[in-house]
Amino acid sequence: MKASIITVGTEILIGSILNTNSKYISSKLTDAGVDVIRQSSVDDNMEDIIREVKSSYEIADLIILTGGLGPTNDDITKESVAKFLGREIYLDEDEKSKMIERFSKLGRNFTENNLKQIMLIKGSQKIENHWGVAFGEVVNLDKKKIILLPGPPSEMEPMFDSYLSDNIYSDEFIIIKSVDVIGLGESLIEDRLRKLDFDKNLNINTFAIGTHTEVKIIAKGKDKEELEISVKKAMDLLYSEFDSHIFSDSNEDVAEKIVEILSKNDLKISFAESITGGMLASAITDISGASNVIETSLVTYSNKSKHENLNVSNSTLGKYGAISEETVYEMAKGLKEMSNCDIAISTSGEAGPNSSETEVGNVYSSIYFSDDEYYTKHYFLTGDRNKIRKQTVYRVLSQLLYILKNRF
Amino acid sequence: MKASIITVGTEILIGSILNTNSKYISSKLTDAGVDVIRQSSVDDNMEDIIREVKSSYEIADLIILTGGLGPTNDDITKESVAKFLGREIYLDEDEKSKMIERFSKLGRNFTENNLKQIMLIKGSQKIENHWGVAFGEVVNLDKKKIILLPGPPSEMEPMFDSYLSDNIYSDEFIIIKSVDVIGLGESLIEDRLRKLDFDKNLNINTFAIGTHTEVKIIAKGKDKEELEISVKKAMDLLYSEFDSHIFSDSNEDVAEKIVEILSKNDLKISFAESITGGMLASAITDISGASNVIETSLVTYSNKSKHENLNVSNSTLGKYGAISEETVYEMAKGLKEMSNCDIAISTSGEAGPNSSETEVGNVYSSIYFSDDEYYTKHYFLTGDRNKIRKQTVYRVLSQLLYILKNRF
Repeated sequence: MKASIITVGTEILIGSILNTNSKYISSKLTDAGVDVIRQSSVDDNMEDIIREVKSSYEIADLIILTGGLGPTNDDITKESVAKFLGREIYLDEDEKSKMIERFSKLGRNFTENNLKQIMLIKGSQKIENHWGVAFGEVVNLDKKKIILLPGPPSEMEPMFDSYLSDNIYSDEFIIIKSVDVIGLGESLIEDRLRKLDFDKNLNINTFAIGTHTEVKIIAKGKDKEELEISVKKAMDLLYSEFDSHIFSDSNEDVAEKIVEILSKNDLKISFAESITGGMLASAITDISGASNVIETSLVTYSNKSKHENLNVSNSTLGKYGAISEETVYEMAKGLKEMSNCDIAISTSGEAGPNSSETEVGNVYSSIYFSDDEYYTKHYFLTGDRNKIRKQTVYRVLSQLLYILKNRF
Repeated sequence: MKASIITVGTEILIGSILNTNSKYISSKLTDAGVDVIRQSSVDDNMEDIIREVKSSYEIADLIILTGGLGPTNDDITKESVAKFLGREIYLDEDEKSKMIERFSKLGRNFTENNLKQIMLIKGSQKIENHWGVAFGEVVNLDKKKIILLPGPPSEMEPMFDSYLSDNIYSDEFIIIKSVDVIGLGESLIEDRLRKLDFDKNLNINTFAIGTHTEVKIIAKGKDKEELEISVKKAMDLLYSEFDSHIFSDSNEDVAEKIVEILSKNDLKISFAESITGGMLASAITDISGASNVIETSLVTYSNKSKHENLNVSNSTLGKYGAISEETVYEMAKGLKEMSNCDIAISTSGEAGPNSSETEVGNVYSSIYFSDDEYYTKHYFLTGDRNKIRKQTVYRVLSQLLYILKNRF
């Protein structure tokens, strides 16, 4: 089955927002075995919308439009599709009274233009909207379908999900498997993948997630047993190639996995952050259940703070500088001593834009268990301030998980 | 001038990445007075690419393609455009030796397939790539242009910028102005905008940035003086309508503005973060120059930590709970006393997914200068864990700037 996605609205065309709807729908359809062959975006303009629907209709079996179903005069997606089909639009009278009731409950003013949102194209099948006002709908034509959904992602996504789960079947079997790889760059992973001997009926893609790389296998075909054998073989190949670098085969998040291992082993973690200035703590506290593994964490931005709060010696700061292996080691060691954590982690570096005692991109981190077991690392990162800080967080989390995974 | 943007590549169609190229180019073209009338994405497939170029050619004057210019067999954007035009592709022999030299300098293996990246369509004009290997190019046809650019944003963006600044002129004058508004929601701002009497030659759009809303005026027309008068009138209208809610008319960042005001007034800030778990500190340390305004900051996640580090009384924690006005007040007050900051800020709340002592979405914050001047706020936020935490950061930063702006 081939699909074409059309997003309608000014914001995307003027570059005011990213087109997350196309990405969302594409990713869900791909997982459902549907080939997305085109995405397009046009303005709220009847001629443009009809042209896109028409050209999509020539090449795709499934046409999904989002946006332009609101109450204003600009919103003409439904009218355009109706005109393309040569069908009427009608108002569902039952819904009108429900709508008026609903508006009065919410204390909102009901105005006639809101009725646009509960009108339907003749012969279509309604998609309920429990997250907003405007209906979605599906028009079934011969063997093709045109689906209309509202633009706001908070409405579109759950409406699409509920429709997808009930209605879109592929005539082929689909198996999707993936492994999550840490400690190796995406391009190195791709190089290694190219040398592996996967069966031809598989599609292997890599997705750089930040902390790690997801290697995803999509198998599609008529013979289920054959697919299962191919996927099993591919998974074995991946496990033997990437071995201890694989931390999950169920799309887990690195921070989530860290919290899980710490929690299970009753370990507390604490951070002393300079270059990352709170980002590591916030990556951990972003996980539900983080309260089991983190109590207190520090941002120690100045030399004064590193000395006073973490007991980094002034001679170390003077001799090696704040951005050095020696300083991050003392930061982590000092943090371990002053808090009652099991693992103390420190970062220090120059994120720019101007170089200081050192070049922009120089970053040090330390993961400290005890004086017998600590891991100090030096990175040289490129990019702007924000990218260098983010990369630091990704590298530290990735290294931490790699250590935890092979230790506990 | 009308433009159509075509992005080529599998990653976008399978929903693996967001289409940032289309957004980037659209936003730049809009600011340059060019109307983007369509964006589309297709796979590395000659038939599909030619179809898109052909249909774009019928409706647009400027066609920009990104992606598919790399060294692999999949990359066929150049070949497809050449076929559409009925032109040959040739290798620039001078560039070949330069390329071999460059690869050897970088210690990279030169292979013949890399030559694909320095081939050009006959009669085109090269766009240099100082950020990668693959050339861009422009084909000038009658009054239309087809531009090809590589897919990676780190190459595409600076290449497009350098081309744009030299080559794309509009036959109209364009004036762009904007104001940044804090302390009012986007929909409220839009409601108020609708009631203002702007001249018809202006386009007014709002952009929700997170911490604030940008209201952007784009004026386009033949009569420069008339435009200037309209824009001046519109800016006056905006200032009289939004008054103290406007903090900038030069696209400033809220955190940046906060650091600027604190720096100028020699003030230090510190955070005691529970629900935001380091995000506020990291928003401030994200700004270059933050070292002047922040030394130490704390993540106090547990009750124990709130009590031990910030001296929040156990009776307050017991009686009102950790998520209460009383607790955030004591957190901020305690933080002010234990650190030598001028402004102490605290947050506490329930981000979910499960409710605890209180409902998910309940958030409290305190901005504390002294016992004579502090601002305690209660928010009820919706969304998932991540959204609630982010919204908290946005609200607190927005409130802080509003206070600072009207106080200093």
